[in-house]
Amino acid sequence: MTRACFITLEGLEGAGKTSRLADLKAFLEQRGKTVLATREPGGTTLGERLRELLLAPDQGSMAPLTELLLMFAARSEHVARLILPALEAGQWVLCDRYVDASYAYQGGGRNLGAAPVAALEALLPARARPDLTLLLDLPVELGLARANRRSAADRFEQETVAFHQRVREAYLARARQHPLRYCIIDAAADPDQVQAAIERAVERLL
Amino acid sequence: MTRACFITLEGLEGAGKTSRLADLKAFLEQRGKTVLATREPGGTTLGERLRELLLAPDQGSMAPLTELLLMFAARSEHVARLILPALEAGQWVLCDRYVDASYAYQGGGRNLGAAPVAALEALLPARARPDLTLLLDLPVELGLARANRRSAADRFEQETVAFHQRVREAYLARARQHPLRYCIIDAAADPDQVQAAIERAVERLL
Ligand SMILES: Nc1ncnc2c1ncn2[C@@H]1O[C@H](COP(=O)(O)OP(=O)(O)OP(=O)(O)O)[C@@H](O)[C@H]1O
Ligand SMILES: Nc1ncnc2c1ncn2[C@@H]1O[C@H](COP(=O)(O)OP(=O)(O)OP(=O)(O)O)[C@@H](O)[C@H]1O
Ligand SMILES: [Mg+2]
Ligand SMILES: [Mg+2]
Repeated sequence: MTRACFITLEGLEGAGKTSRLADLKAFLEQRGKTVLATREPGGTTLGERLRELLLAPDQGSMAPLTELLLMFAARSEHVARLILPALEAGQWVLCDRYVDASYAYQGGGRNLGAAPVAALEALLPARARPDLTLLLDLPVELGLARANRRSAADRFEQETVAFHQRVREAYLARARQHPLRYCIIDAAADPDQVQAAIERAVERLL
Repeated sequence: MTRACFITLEGLEGAGKTSRLADLKAFLEQRGKTVLATREPGGTTLGERLRELLLAPDQGSMAPLTELLLMFAARSEHVARLILPALEAGQWVLCDRYVDASYAYQGGGRNLGAAPVAALEALLPARARPDLTLLLDLPVELGLARANRRSAADRFEQETVAFHQRVREAYLARARQHPLRYCIIDAAADPDQVQAAIERAVERLL
């Protein structure tokens, strides 16, 4: 048996992370894997309460460092309660956003830079590092148009196009810095093509 | 005019922080200072919501690192919204618990050690370092007895005596490491004597 892998899906709002996660779970299950599919912030009772605080459009502004710390608080609980126990039990873990989202949203979007994110990442256990990160990359306008068609805007979706440009660029910078872990997927393509690209990327872990 | 000072009150449950803070505020106001008296976690709308999550006896357990990150999230907001603006406007700030409480409760009580606390402290702005920390020190049993007489136990007060011993020792270790900033006050004494000791310690800032 291969070691259980930890795969994260990253990208802008509307990139297709949630849709693709469900298909990827089915794909891995067909290959005989037990799979935990989860999302952050959230995944635990406390995490869902923090998710509300973080995403509610009426929450009002909070300092960028506060936002970063809350994201990592939810993440820490998620890692301790769900992700590590699943990996240790031999389950594959698929997570809709993870540490790289903080580099992108708080580091890039909120202009905190990478250093404070790296300081917090260093507090997480080593086993909680993803084996593969699928970056569903697409132009900002296309992502926002898809997300707006779907539902009312949350606190992040309400942000400016310039904010989302910084997020996209920070994601692409992370991918350049971690070329072995990252796989950039063209998320502007048709769902079938996106899914095929994801399955090719995941094959090498099987 | 002397520069506005930032004074923190630390110590176990029942040490007398909240009672002494009110008297210290009155003392400084008699000396012509404008004073902001505040407490943490809390002090902002978001902070009070986090305070509920952190202190509610029915919250159940959370990973120690999660607790540390939540404390610092509340603290970051408190610093950005209240403490720094007040200091910059020339107001003295008195705060009921601050960063040293994380060294004591999460570092000592929860056994996380000082390193993760120091990593988070380094993210706060330099101006948000206390000028003086009053450690109201007393035996654990005496503090808990006072606190229990006052109100129902919160999530921390429910902890074991051994937990509170570690908290007390971590506070005393911090005081040894920062002898210029710290002043240890015998909080087992009568309220009048405690107050007199606090006023002597604060005199040197005036
Ligand atoms: N490749 C695609 N082509 C066209 N539409 C797509 C594609 N992938 C997803 N969509 C649609 O775009 C919308 C957003 O997709 P989805 O919710 O999966 O994105 P997401 O990345 O999870 O967004 P969020 O970050 O906001 O959760 C959905 O309505 C989905 O059906
Ligand atoms: N020096 C003292 N001698 C006797 N009783 C005291 C003294 N100081 C405070 N008390 C009493 O002890 C109880 C706890 O005091 P207080 O609430 O000020 O402590 P605290 O340090 O703020 O505790 P907590 O950390 O739980 O908020 C109160 O009932 C208070 O009246
Ligand atoms: Mg989604
Ligand atoms: Mg008190």
